[in-house]
Amino acid sequence: MTAFVTDLSGDFRHACAARIEGFLRTATFDRPTLVIDTDVVLQNFRALSQGLGDAHIHYAVKANPEPQVIEALVNAGSHFDAASRGEIELCLSQGARPEDISFGNTVKKPGDIAFAYNVGVTLFAADAEEELDKIAEHAPGAEVYIRLIVEASGADWPLTRKFGCAPDHAVALMDYALSLGLRPVGVSFHVGSQTRKAEMWAPVLDRIADVWRAARAEGHALDLLNIGGGFPAFYGEDIAAPAIYAAQVREMVAERFGDLARLMAEPGRGLVAEAGMIAAEVVLVSRKSPDDLHRWVYLDIGMFSGLAETMDEAIRYQFVTARDGERTGPCILAGPSCDSADVLYEKRMIDLPLGLKSGDRVFIRSCGAYTSSYSSVGFNGFPPLDVVVM
Amino acid sequence: MTAFVTDLSGDFRHACAARIEGFLRTATFDRPTLVIDTDVVLQNFRALSQGLGDAHIHYAVKANPEPQVIEALVNAGSHFDAASRGEIELCLSQGARPEDISFGNTVKKPGDIAFAYNVGVTLFAADAEEELDKIAEHAPGAEVYIRLIVEASGADWPLTRKFGCAPDHAVALMDYALSLGLRPVGVSFHVGSQTRKAEMWAPVLDRIADVWRAARAEGHALDLLNIGGGFPAFYGEDIAAPAIYAAQVREMVAERFGDLARLMAEPGRGLVAEAGMIAAEVVLVSRKSPDDLHRWVYLDIGMFSGLAETMDEAIRYQFVTARDGERTGPCILAGPSCDSADVLYEKRMIDLPLGLKSGDRVFIRSCGAYTSSYSSVGFNGFPPLDVVVM
Repeated sequence: MTAFVTDLSGDFRHACAARIEGFLRTATFDRPTLVIDTDVVLQNFRALSQGLGDAHIHYAVKANPEPQVIEALVNAGSHFDAASRGEIELCLSQGARPEDISFGNTVKKPGDIAFAYNVGVTLFAADAEEELDKIAEHAPGAEVYIRLIVEASGADWPLTRKFGCAPDHAVALMDYALSLGLRPVGVSFHVGSQTRKAEMWAPVLDRIADVWRAARAEGHALDLLNIGGGFPAFYGEDIAAPAIYAAQVREMVAERFGDLARLMAEPGRGLVAEAGMIAAEVVLVSRKSPDDLHRWVYLDIGMFSGLAETMDEAIRYQFVTARDGERTGPCILAGPSCDSADVLYEKRMIDLPLGLKSGDRVFIRSCGAYTSSYSSVGFNGFPPLDVVVM
Repeated sequence: MTAFVTDLSGDFRHACAARIEGFLRTATFDRPTLVIDTDVVLQNFRALSQGLGDAHIHYAVKANPEPQVIEALVNAGSHFDAASRGEIELCLSQGARPEDISFGNTVKKPGDIAFAYNVGVTLFAADAEEELDKIAEHAPGAEVYIRLIVEASGADWPLTRKFGCAPDHAVALMDYALSLGLRPVGVSFHVGSQTRKAEMWAPVLDRIADVWRAARAEGHALDLLNIGGGFPAFYGEDIAAPAIYAAQVREMVAERFGDLARLMAEPGRGLVAEAGMIAAEVVLVSRKSPDDLHRWVYLDIGMFSGLAETMDEAIRYQFVTARDGERTGPCILAGPSCDSADVLYEKRMIDLPLGLKSGDRVFIRSCGAYTSSYSSVGFNGFPPLDVVVM
């Protein structure tokens, strides 16, 4: 199957980065700015669509809720996964059809369920009795899929036990949904954000397939499998091209589930991360004393103004400076706020040019996901990350 | 010294909480809302002023930049510590005099230094040569104090090594500042946010006093000691009353520094934390399966919409529900977003009524500090924390 898929990695990735970097080099910004290239979003959308074949792609809006990104994806035929009423409103405002929006948060306020139902959203996630009660009351007769908890798969941003029911409780929840007049149509799961290797999906899919078979054996006419997100972005470590990765996942799904009436996937990072680059600036380079082995580099963007995914140093961004090619050395990288937790990388330091100094511009690659919306409203008086869409 | 200070803890604390809680019980909010009682802010300001005697209190604006809080403190005679140009503009807009504002961030953009200097700010922090270069260029002749790094003191929100120079490098930085035409007038440090016991200050003050003496011996006519923040708020664990705590610190300072021409302190949390309470709501109560020992309670506020200080479960908030008094049990507490990192307390669970269910209101105490400004701009489509000032 994978033989027919074009490898869009290598050259394409370089071309994308070059285009955004070219724009950044000629532009000036008076504060940290995320530049998004919607062409890259669409290219990734097409690559994942190609690899996933008949699956519906529901873009995980939370990854980047920039209206122009949503609009571009609406025009390309994408569906959407919304985490809140706010995201549903956003999708509708950009032209998405309500029947193409799933309300995938398993923790929903009654009023938000009612809102979604009234505008025409028909598909809801749940992982608990009380959530089904709310959906039955405020979205009577709706389709629901049961989210399952799965063991961590080795993803770079692994999931906690926050979402999902125990696999052996799924059938009971489907029974309960039916008793409330809801339509339990399938199951969902999440392998973990930034799951770098497709083979990490195999044991998770095995477990989900067990539940799927058990539910069908109990008489539930499931026809929807939601494989969630987890599609990786390039942060410097080698990953497969999106189309090839997706095709591998699709093949593993086919092996375990055969023909599926409805397959859906919820990529977020995999669509938008590489489409964005942040223009930032060095504010200070220092050592604690002349004989200190550790160099500190402070940027004008930090953990509270866009780079929240550096928490626990989970996501490791790549940095581009005008001094690249000069001699480099390790540094501790920190943000501009007075908060001592606002340190980006310290345990594993970042290699940057030794000549770097205050005022130097720094570009940060693959910043299209989980940056602008993670920004604080104005912590320490710094404005939130600005966004420009190319 | 402490004998003359009124204990404002116990009864006063209860009275404050009762007043805000009374307001919350009669009000309705359609989304998570922080209610701030400026009377409590002013009461804390007077208590710390009483304990610290001749010290100038520079409110650390980053703790809560609500304009009405700033305005109330301006009218009470407070000075201000700003982390950015944005915070300086805010203070000026609320009537603060520029000479009462210190620019305490050791990581400042050149343009922001120039802005501060041009509006009349005269006092700047620095901990490195490059920062002094920037200040000398954009705020020629300004007063600077050198921030020193100190060992963690056992604070609940301990500091990293992000800020400050090594103590034995301080005199060299003062020499350098002088060579640039700046006026090195003193030193600063920070014992760590939420330092619950006043005696934790002693070893830190010892170390700072060594530097102070060494600098004076080298001919630097220091006259400003900035003791930073660290003044604790009540989160359920016993702490001394603000006035008594502050008086203890003042006494320890007097023992080590004698008469000081200028003493300044930068409380943030100690002024505003107890002045705020958040009105939130339970969105879901669930277990992963019927035999799961762990109950999950999901609120409509989480780590990305105001409760960022639950990171690593550092700050432990107190929760009030209408079912208090009923049987309770431990629960894992989580926020409403689709982010699996949005779990507030799991390692040390929270005891809440077993009857708690979706739709129940929850009040969260001592939320006046580091909540509204830490909110994301709209992660997962949830609006940032709303604020109401009483």
